[in-house]
Amino acid sequence: MAEITLIGSGNVAWHIGKALASAGHSINSVYSRNFSNAKLLADWLPNSTAIDHTDFSKSNSELFIIAVSDHALEEVVSKVTIPANAVIAHTSGSMPMEVLNKFPHYGVFYALQTFTKGKEIVMEEVPFGIEASDVSTYHRLETVALSLSKKVEPINSAQRKVLHIAAVFACNFTNHLFSISKAILEKEKMNFSILEPLIKETLQKAFELGPEAAQTGPAIRGDEKIIQQHLDYLKSKPEIQQLYKLISENIMQKEERGKGV
Amino acid sequence: MAEITLIGSGNVAWHIGKALASAGHSINSVYSRNFSNAKLLADWLPNSTAIDHTDFSKSNSELFIIAVSDHALEEVVSKVTIPANAVIAHTSGSMPMEVLNKFPHYGVFYALQTFTKGKEIVMEEVPFGIEASDVSTYHRLETVALSLSKKVEPINSAQRKVLHIAAVFACNFTNHLFSISKAILEKEKMNFSILEPLIKETLQKAFELGPEAAQTGPAIRGDEKIIQQHLDYLKSKPEIQQLYKLISENIMQKEERGKGV
Repeated sequence: MAEITLIGSGNVAWHIGKALASAGHSINSVYSRNFSNAKLLADWLPNSTAIDHTDFSKSNSELFIIAVSDHALEEVVSKVTIPANAVIAHTSGSMPMEVLNKFPHYGVFYALQTFTKGKEIVMEEVPFGIEASDVSTYHRLETVALSLSKKVEPINSAQRKVLHIAAVFACNFTNHLFSISKAILEKEKMNFSILEPLIKETLQKAFELGPEAAQTGPAIRGDEKIIQQHLDYLKSKPEIQQLYKLISENIMQKEERGKGV
Repeated sequence: MAEITLIGSGNVAWHIGKALASAGHSINSVYSRNFSNAKLLADWLPNSTAIDHTDFSKSNSELFIIAVSDHALEEVVSKVTIPANAVIAHTSGSMPMEVLNKFPHYGVFYALQTFTKGKEIVMEEVPFGIEASDVSTYHRLETVALSLSKKVEPINSAQRKVLHIAAVFACNFTNHLFSISKAILEKEKMNFSILEPLIKETLQKAFELGPEAAQTGPAIRGDEKIIQQHLDYLKSKPEIQQLYKLISENIMQKEERGKGV
């Protein structure tokens, strides 16, 4: 089991910290630019201390996990010093591994999940993407990831960037469509929860059959009459109407091409 | 328990037919424009006969459920005759109830779910939207719906149309985003299944917190740098790039307005 320092005190730090502690690792210290946040997290973890400086050159930790927001990462990296033999890794889905290249052993410890404070996650099911500066560092990070999850794989910085784009489409944009859907229903005094079974089945079919085969709806059927009725209904919301139109065209084009994007 | 005739032999007819039979109703006959399809379904249902004509004026059925595609509905309706006291209802999410107004007692028996032959559905959880020409017909349809599902509510034709638009956004368009996401991943030798835990969590949060509160990602953070990187990556796929841009703008506008669509 590893001696670990957590740098950061946001959602990712809380969830990863808790999972690491539960897996038997020792999170001996927590640093955050906001000391009181570091203290809250350190108090919550077993045998952990909040630290108010970034000189870790005398630390017992063999692994430093930086879980801070992307825009804070470079500043934090510029300040931190660690023991020569220690490994340092960030958890960002967007930042290249090389932002850590001032350290001898560095990598990425990327948990592909959205974390919310206070909301439980089955960490064992969360895919971890590992990247490292060298093979031995890879194995050190992989061992720690495997103590949390059964889904650990090498993902390089280019793949991680693409994974983030794919997740924006499949999660962030999808969620926005849910918002639109909810607003449309509420305007007519219906509750978004009425769509829950249909949305769940849509999701299940997308994973069972593949989303291309599972596509249904007026656009894939080329049902211009229904599409026009829907566009007419949306005319008072031009930005939503435009979105309906663009996605429908996109589905129809795809059908015509008979292949993926 | 009701004596029922099914008109249609597609996915909806199979699923509704099976659920009705399991609930103890008698599907005494099945009609389809394609007789051999009617026969397949009738053979699969207990004590059911395939019928090759549309004159049901002497039928024992007290309920006729028309589960055919929207474009076939009017033609089928023009041909069918039923006993004076019987109820006839269609299952379409898009067609107005009034397409049935040549009959004395008519309505809509709308199951808000996507049905695939051979794929089990927990019918009890499927929301049913009922509309009827008169109160007594409403109660007859409601009683049958309640024998299948615990979620039965009155939904008029205007609401049903809006529900369909909302479902297009939340399901059809969402599924298309999954297709895009999958294609992006596969191009970089990654598997779409890596996103499954994240997508499931996104869905769960959308229903627990509401999708407006659950929105995450570069657009809601106003992270122009990441958005630009993503747009650059997508430049070889202009229609996907345009979609990324439009949805991101839409999310940002919504955030600025600080309110729903």
